[in-house]
Amino acid sequence: MSLFPESFISPEVATQLAPEYILRSLKASDYHHNVLNVLKDLTTVGDISEAKFIEQCEFMHSRQGEYFMIVIEKISTGNVVAVGTLLVERKFIHECGLVGHIEDIAVAKSEQGKSLGKKIIAALDFIGQKSGCYKNILDCSPYNEQFYVKCGYSNVGFEMTKRF
Amino acid sequence: MSLFPESFISPEVATQLAPEYILRSLKASDYHHNVLNVLKDLTTVGDISEAKFIEQCEFMHSRQGEYFMIVIEKISTGNVVAVGTLLVERKFIHECGLVGHIEDIAVAKSEQGKSLGKKIIAALDFIGQKSGCYKNILDCSPYNEQFYVKCGYSNVGFEMTKRF
Repeated sequence: MSLFPESFISPEVATQLAPEYILRSLKASDYHHNVLNVLKDLTTVGDISEAKFIEQCEFMHSRQGEYFMIVIEKISTGNVVAVGTLLVERKFIHECGLVGHIEDIAVAKSEQGKSLGKKIIAALDFIGQKSGCYKNILDCSPYNEQFYVKCGYSNVGFEMTKRF
Repeated sequence: MSLFPESFISPEVATQLAPEYILRSLKASDYHHNVLNVLKDLTTVGDISEAKFIEQCEFMHSRQGEYFMIVIEKISTGNVVAVGTLLVERKFIHECGLVGHIEDIAVAKSEQGKSLGKKIIAALDFIGQKSGCYKNILDCSPYNEQFYVKCGYSNVGFEMTKRF
């Protein structure tokens, strides 16, 4: 089961990828193909059972037009080597405008330095535009600012957090 | 029609409000009670018909547990004088954790300086905790950083944007 239709996969980004990779939607079967380990390079993931993973995939699938989690798969292993999510928010401002929130970008350590992160961002920009978002936004540490500037993003303010 | 159940309204914040105000969910009938004018103090809103407004309220209502748009109403006029939204995102990281995104905080110019913005944030923090979010996050201009620090938020990074 794919989370979203193939039409949201950027043909341009897909063709720019080296032939050993595929750009596609997350699938429930990716539980067995390293996706959670890739996310572990980003932050704590914790124990997620296959049932819980499938339930989350089904939730995201039920939210058509809202949750777009894409992956880059390394064909030779079938494993996920890069991930990113676009959450499309509906607002009242900007004539009931849509904003894309880029979340949880991660690339497997063994695959870093191959611009896969940049491809994930470009793929999420395509989804944002295709969805009709007037902008995509993301939060990052100052350390990652220049990476996102290279992706065409501008620093427009601060991220503020309160942990519970 | 309220967007979400009364149980998500912080009793503490509700009692802290001066008696001329009520804290409550947005309602479709707020179209006639100034809510879009309050948002206009924040940014462009544009032309939104009542039908479009009601459709958006129905969408948010259909997303139980996800879209929480709260308002402060001035009882004497029935008008909305402050608004804020919490969008609850489901993630895989942090054991399929939830994150609350605070969006589109606005207070009517005539009602500023009465800590209504602070009450809106406290009310959205209550909703985030009650929803089981491990944190709430928001983006702000450097100019507003100190306001959010007073609300208990910490600067953890940058907001990056790409407009389409």
